[in-house]
Amino acid sequence: MSLLLAMQGWHVEDWRARFEALLPEMPVVVLGEPFDRRAVHYVASWKHPPGSLGGLPNLAAIFSLGAGVDFLFADEALPDVPVARVVDPDLTTRMSEYVVLHCLMYLRQQHRYMRQQPAKLWDDDRHQPAARSLRVGIMGLGELGLDAARKLQLIGFDVAGWSRSPKTVEGLPTFAGEEGMAAFLARTDILVSLLPLTPQTRGIIGAELLAGLAKDGRLGPFLINAGRGGLQVEPDILAALDAGTLKGATLDVFETEPLPQDSPLWTHPLVTVTPHNAAMSEPEAVAALIAAQIRRLEAGEPLQHIVDPTRGY
Amino acid sequence: MSLLLAMQGWHVEDWRARFEALLPEMPVVVLGEPFDRRAVHYVASWKHPPGSLGGLPNLAAIFSLGAGVDFLFADEALPDVPVARVVDPDLTTRMSEYVVLHCLMYLRQQHRYMRQQPAKLWDDDRHQPAARSLRVGIMGLGELGLDAARKLQLIGFDVAGWSRSPKTVEGLPTFAGEEGMAAFLARTDILVSLLPLTPQTRGIIGAELLAGLAKDGRLGPFLINAGRGGLQVEPDILAALDAGTLKGATLDVFETEPLPQDSPLWTHPLVTVTPHNAAMSEPEAVAALIAAQIRRLEAGEPLQHIVDPTRGY
Repeated sequence: MSLLLAMQGWHVEDWRARFEALLPEMPVVVLGEPFDRRAVHYVASWKHPPGSLGGLPNLAAIFSLGAGVDFLFADEALPDVPVARVVDPDLTTRMSEYVVLHCLMYLRQQHRYMRQQPAKLWDDDRHQPAARSLRVGIMGLGELGLDAARKLQLIGFDVAGWSRSPKTVEGLPTFAGEEGMAAFLARTDILVSLLPLTPQTRGIIGAELLAGLAKDGRLGPFLINAGRGGLQVEPDILAALDAGTLKGATLDVFETEPLPQDSPLWTHPLVTVTPHNAAMSEPEAVAALIAAQIRRLEAGEPLQHIVDPTRGY
Repeated sequence: MSLLLAMQGWHVEDWRARFEALLPEMPVVVLGEPFDRRAVHYVASWKHPPGSLGGLPNLAAIFSLGAGVDFLFADEALPDVPVARVVDPDLTTRMSEYVVLHCLMYLRQQHRYMRQQPAKLWDDDRHQPAARSLRVGIMGLGELGLDAARKLQLIGFDVAGWSRSPKTVEGLPTFAGEEGMAAFLARTDILVSLLPLTPQTRGIIGAELLAGLAKDGRLGPFLINAGRGGLQVEPDILAALDAGTLKGATLDVFETEPLPQDSPLWTHPLVTVTPHNAAMSEPEAVAALIAAQIRRLEAGEPLQHIVDPTRGY
């Protein structure tokens, strides 16, 4: 039996070496090279070409090599076997690092100070608001959203959360569903998107949502999307920035990744681009977590962190 | 009796209006305009010209309009009356906002991503360390240092502290005095200076200290000085950056402020300049705190937050 690596855009040789070290008893084969399709029991994928995982009669499980799994379900020919996510405890702390960093950059007007520096401009803001004067709204109250909310509150921000279905969280005002959206947006100076990409959330960050953000804030409104690129409608974000209704956008994810060279987001003065690394697992940690799952299955134990295909997370 | 405003570099009219609104019963006079020197009972100063507070026979107290008081004791002709600091509870949370922001910018290599963006470079770091892999060392364990330490720990950083005299803090490894300095520096990837400026700390951030910072870190070493400009030796910082022993410096304070136009710090690619606004009180809050102190004295109650001139804080 063997493990098939199926990836695009990543260095497959690094991954092969990691898995060979972790699972010395198991042959590791690579999509695009010749291999025995009947021997493949496991697939580890990062954006495999859709349709390329057919004809694997003994496949038992598919593992995503990243935190997202939407690319798997986008493959209409995905084999009907359990799909497991990587649940890396580090991922949550890393995402919160990113969210706290970028909320603080907006609160403390760090973009402005970095623009001023080359001009040798010594110009402070004597009316710099404190964190408690800025209202952060987190969309998505899974593990990532709740950890970010707690840390933002500790820094001093005025935080609330929104989720698709109602959720009660001690010490955190929450809103839910379409009926809670308007009130949530109206009290949001910094919108932080940590939603999964599903048919219900695709394109949710568009003109209507952006127009609903707070108009009475001390600073903002600003957008931080560290969820998935498919959540956002990039022309709508650019239009809101140009209209002045949105004062800044920090985007870690994009409709197309890597972000195309001709995207106006690269050079827009109010956009901060990061290369989809808000919460990146160390490859060693991911490989170890997947190897542990494979060993669990081989020992007859159940697979963990199985994704519900109807919910998409 | 009257309140004398003595300041340089700030808009005195704004301050006059604030104090007149808060203390309608008390005339507010301004240094540089004619006024009755015998009537002055209180001085509120921000960097008054040294020697300019002589000949005030009924002076009862001097208030600093900012968090620092070192500029007062630098005036050798300062009248021998009690000096009081502003203790604004907001100041602590603001300083921690600044410290957490700039530690996260180094951890998450945000300087690098902002350099890459105009070049349209999509290049992540698949070995981005988590916060627990970065060791922050905080110099100065007063109220500011302890609050910053606690918040950095919550984000995940590996934090330790150094103070001039030994201090025990639950859950925080501490070092003290000259004898503890080498061990403290050797485990520091990000040095955060929150020290007061005293004869003992002047110039402490110099070549010797910088050479002692960690050489085995995942990132760094980096310097963040949000204390006082007099703590740092700017040519030594520049030399360490150019030699590659220091990988970045974020400076909110400078030997001369505003930072002179010909300072090489403005344009050094590894230096981040902010205009001494890490922890700025809102002028309204400062004026209200000083007005409350004046009312307390007028009611025969003791002055609060008196500075010990021998310690300088």
